[in-house]
Amino acid sequence: MGIRVAVAGASGYAGGELLRLLAGHPEFDLVAATAHASAGRPVAAVHPQLAGLDLVFGATDPATLADADLVFLALPHGQSAALAAALPGPVKVVDLGADHRLRDADAWARYYGGDHAGAWTYGLPELPGQRAAVAAADRVASTGCYAVATTLALAPLIAAGAVFPADVVVVAASGTSGAGRAAKPHLLGSEVMGDLSPYKVGAHQHVPEIKQATGATSLSFTPVLAPMPRGILATVTAVPTGDADPREVLAAAYADEPFVHVLPEGAWPHTAATAGGNSCHLQATVDVDSGRVIVVSAIDNLGKGAAGQAVQNANLMFGLPETTGLPVFGVAP
Amino acid sequence: MGIRVAVAGASGYAGGELLRLLAGHPEFDLVAATAHASAGRPVAAVHPQLAGLDLVFGATDPATLADADLVFLALPHGQSAALAAALPGPVKVVDLGADHRLRDADAWARYYGGDHAGAWTYGLPELPGQRAAVAAADRVASTGCYAVATTLALAPLIAAGAVFPADVVVVAASGTSGAGRAAKPHLLGSEVMGDLSPYKVGAHQHVPEIKQATGATSLSFTPVLAPMPRGILATVTAVPTGDADPREVLAAAYADEPFVHVLPEGAWPHTAATAGGNSCHLQATVDVDSGRVIVVSAIDNLGKGAAGQAVQNANLMFGLPETTGLPVFGVAP
Amino acid sequence: MGIRVAVAGASGYAGGELLRLLAGHPEFDLVAATAHASAGRPVAAVHPQLAGLDLVFGATDPATLADADLVFLALPHGQSAALAAALPGPVKVVDLGADHRLRDADAWARYYGGDHAGAWTYGLPELPGQRAAVAAADRVASTGCYAVATTLALAPLIAAGAVFPADVVVVAASGTSGAGRAAKPHLLGSEVMGDLSPYKVGAHQHVPEIKQATGATSLSFTPVLAPMPRGILATVTAVPTGDADPREVLAAAYADEPFVHVLPEGAWPHTAATAGGNSCHLQATVDVDSGRVIVVSAIDNLGKGAAGQAVQNANLMFGLPETTGLPVFGVAP
Amino acid sequence: MGIRVAVAGASGYAGGELLRLLAGHPEFDLVAATAHASAGRPVAAVHPQLAGLDLVFGATDPATLADADLVFLALPHGQSAALAAALPGPVKVVDLGADHRLRDADAWARYYGGDHAGAWTYGLPELPGQRAAVAAADRVASTGCYAVATTLALAPLIAAGAVFPADVVVVAASGTSGAGRAAKPHLLGSEVMGDLSPYKVGAHQHVPEIKQATGATSLSFTPVLAPMPRGILATVTAVPTGDADPREVLAAAYADEPFVHVLPEGAWPHTAATAGGNSCHLQATVDVDSGRVIVVSAIDNLGKGAAGQAVQNANLMFGLPETTGLPVFGVAP
Repeated sequence: MGIRVAVAGASGYAGGELLRLLAGHPEFDLVAATAHASAGRPVAAVHPQLAGLDLVFGATDPATLADADLVFLALPHGQSAALAAALPGPVKVVDLGADHRLRDADAWARYYGGDHAGAWTYGLPELPGQRAAVAAADRVASTGCYAVATTLALAPLIAAGAVFPADVVVVAASGTSGAGRAAKPHLLGSEVMGDLSPYKVGAHQHVPEIKQATGATSLSFTPVLAPMPRGILATVTAVPTGDADPREVLAAAYADEPFVHVLPEGAWPHTAATAGGNSCHLQATVDVDSGRVIVVSAIDNLGKGAAGQAVQNANLMFGLPETTGLPVFGVAP
Repeated sequence: MGIRVAVAGASGYAGGELLRLLAGHPEFDLVAATAHASAGRPVAAVHPQLAGLDLVFGATDPATLADADLVFLALPHGQSAALAAALPGPVKVVDLGADHRLRDADAWARYYGGDHAGAWTYGLPELPGQRAAVAAADRVASTGCYAVATTLALAPLIAAGAVFPADVVVVAASGTSGAGRAAKPHLLGSEVMGDLSPYKVGAHQHVPEIKQATGATSLSFTPVLAPMPRGILATVTAVPTGDADPREVLAAAYADEPFVHVLPEGAWPHTAATAGGNSCHLQATVDVDSGRVIVVSAIDNLGKGAAGQAVQNANLMFGLPETTGLPVFGVAP
Repeated sequence: MGIRVAVAGASGYAGGELLRLLAGHPEFDLVAATAHASAGRPVAAVHPQLAGLDLVFGATDPATLADADLVFLALPHGQSAALAAALPGPVKVVDLGADHRLRDADAWARYYGGDHAGAWTYGLPELPGQRAAVAAADRVASTGCYAVATTLALAPLIAAGAVFPADVVVVAASGTSGAGRAAKPHLLGSEVMGDLSPYKVGAHQHVPEIKQATGATSLSFTPVLAPMPRGILATVTAVPTGDADPREVLAAAYADEPFVHVLPEGAWPHTAATAGGNSCHLQATVDVDSGRVIVVSAIDNLGKGAAGQAVQNANLMFGLPETTGLPVFGVAP
Repeated sequence: MGIRVAVAGASGYAGGELLRLLAGHPEFDLVAATAHASAGRPVAAVHPQLAGLDLVFGATDPATLADADLVFLALPHGQSAALAAALPGPVKVVDLGADHRLRDADAWARYYGGDHAGAWTYGLPELPGQRAAVAAADRVASTGCYAVATTLALAPLIAAGAVFPADVVVVAASGTSGAGRAAKPHLLGSEVMGDLSPYKVGAHQHVPEIKQATGATSLSFTPVLAPMPRGILATVTAVPTGDADPREVLAAAYADEPFVHVLPEGAWPHTAATAGGNSCHLQATVDVDSGRVIVVSAIDNLGKGAAGQAVQNANLMFGLPETTGLPVFGVAP
């Protein structure tokens, strides 16, 4: 008998990817998936890629989830806290939403609004100390997609003193699944195909999370919607403190990491190469004109940026090998 | 110690997908991958989605392949026969190319040209009798991508006498990976994005294979290149012989198949739902105006249409459970 | 002082394309554009490609439209009749919707439902006799997008007796703008990119229109949604009556047409080549295996399939050269 | 009799767009188009969107071009100088290549290599003084695509003293047509669809051109290839000198420009809205966290970034209204 897992809010894109990963996971038994409007519908009617999965969406209430050993919350921001509070103590929880990521209640209020639910253990095992912290935790706030891509690129450089934390400029483009599954006019295929468009320019809600996770003290972060279903490409630039080779700093930091690949010199990350997997690809250089350090990071926003990251955290929480059930390789072309 | 497998011609798209599947296969040990122009290069330099795979392309010669238990041939059409003939007898072979699919030498000459290499066991286990034949074979000609999509839609209807074999019309659109990885001007991203274009209209080389596999005696087959990397959607129409429900005929034929899913009534196949997996999705109806039977079939041309199909055949050839190492679910969105 | 034109229902995709064409038309003065939910908003806020156009959406009521010389109706199906009836007699009207296309009230009831508004002059000038009919008409029902693509491919062959009208099979794929601008979940970019999906299989509402326009007596028509914003590729097959060369029949029929191009032998239509223009590209052959005639037709569904076609009709209605203000060439890549 | 124009190197993407614009231009008569490998082929065989254009590619030699009044050079970098030198004096020339853009021979040697051909009048009329300079010139070096997008966003801010020129960070993503039409493996549709990938990171050849045009003294410029045929989105950030509103600075600078649109507050540029047109869309804000100025700029790389820009310059050189034959509006969706 395996570990019993349930997914709350499984009708969205991150939820669907979680179900795909969990259905193939050798230690986790998927016992329930819940939804709001889709409660009562077969999972495969909502996620046609899961044709053959014999499961029906339940309603998102504590009773449906309470007899699981592990619950993933893939709910809209602001809805995790109440549901988590209603779950019995022994149930471990991984939250894919933002509710419990920020330690700073003021930042929460400023960027998200409403009451701050309080911080949980931050679920990015590649950060120093976080692997052990996640393994010891019962409640983990899994990292946001932009924050994964940016933090893995930047945190070791700041930690090593190789770049100044006070002048970081990031432009990051995401595939449309990062914008969710709600039917909004600007997300129609007719609008997004052939189009690049920036959004939330000057004030994106991932800014405080990225600053908290990386140690950056000033961050210009511009997100762009890109014409592809999946993937994040983050271009991170910062001012070097000396002449450390940024690629070597990253390579040293991630030498033993199964999911973070600093590419060979001259090879730059492609988002497509990470699609469907739980990997992050990195490369770095120093710009010849400005002298700034440039790091480019690629992930699958639904993989290492959401569902894969969440399963990685869950593996640690249950003492499983961290890579259990998680693909390293991408599905490309 | 597992079964030692090698892939010849692994630098193309089908080859890359094979490597991905084999790297995650619990019984097959990937010991060699060969290429022509890329011999000597790291596999991950050619297939960036395999970053972290520690393997270098060898040259495509028998010596590199001879100590494998199983060799997959993913070579251009016309190159399999000579290489296969040079492999030692005990080495089992699955050919992803067309060389050994056709029993009719005249059809080979007419559609491909050159000498006919002779037919091997046809690798489509879902056809009556083929599962056992593949399991008993040492050399298997894996099915072509368009032939998989069309045959799974059509063969049971002809076999059941539900449609006439003499008036079959198929229009099938494929993602660009089906056209291969050679750098041809009409396959540039700038050309294919936003574009649908038919090709080889009136005389496609998959016609004799589909007729052989389905029993159709007259086949109009029009292929179309579609603006997506993967996927085939085949629309198959034929004249019914009576009033059998075509969906029920298909559902009965595939009731026990792990990879063929006749969707619930009202749900129609999407190619995206099959991406990255080894599944075929089917639906059928009778057209209200013409009375023709319409079956729509969706596969991933690199999955069930190539690499996944080949691994499925190999599983059978080695007495493994047919689904070993093969994803049923797709990666979507 | 030019001809005063107004567009009702101009917030959708066909409406936006109409505004673009009309803004550059040398004889038509765009005096009003109306919308429902967007009434009161600047046109450029709804159609960002029209940045710089100084126009605000009015409400869709007769008073806003009544002082125009010409009104285009780009309304949802079923809403044209009432509005048209409320316009003063001298106002000429081109309806882009389906309401007035069908002569057969039963067919209307069967495929659309509700009361039949009665037929207007059918707006496809390339059909025999229709050019003069449109020029003489005050109310014209402009052709539907799938009907344009299919009719231009098929009508001359049936009219010439080159193919039988009783066994026509069409598979036609459309870009997503053909599905409209309403925010529906299955039209999200995340769903449609990388995906081909059939819809309304077995009973599409364009069937009676195509039969009426072409003379086909039995029609199997399967529409497919394709991952691109614009374009229709129709593959039309029929049984030849003799050995007439279908390409020559088409070339003869369209020798003097400015917008219909039968491509040189060996060149097949691409949808991308028609994007943004008012042209239809055609090619034909006879299938070597089945002997069926195969014609492939490409148009821009918003151009020759909607807005361009409507302007072409309007030019005729006002005695202008038919090509006035209409691009022949496409915008590619 | 109009002005006789010829295009050298017209088989590429910028050349094709030029032919499209020139074919519809009321004052320019397109008398010749030349190509290298495609010499002797009909133009429409190479550019299917121009079906119906009755023109055959000539060879790219001075004799073919010498009797034109105006020659556009759309050649690979490094090939313009020799051809231009061989043209008779009275022939006016607009070069779409880079050969004559840089005033600094050292920068040419560093970024392009080879001999510097010398600078011509820089063809960006929206820069102070350049409109008159272009109008007076016989030889004009039209601006590069990335340089157009970045310069229009940045130059007025530096000129107004609103931002410091010494810390400019730009990330700009381009559609694939910007990478040209040569058949390279990494530009295949299978590779680019679903993919974002950076290239020439740390040392792009547009850096010296942008610095020259904007006055920036330090520039970090990272280009990204995006999965769309056309369009550039440039995200430009710089440190403000005071509290000037960057949007107001831009709005004042471009108040009378026909092709540059500073969007209403809250509206951000989309590349799709500029496709097929000659417009640049701009918006600006100040980042709440870092305090940096962020300007986003969108153009069609083949329009305002290449062919449209070249025609705009040519209009000025012949004393025509600057907007003659140039679309302001984009083709979207």
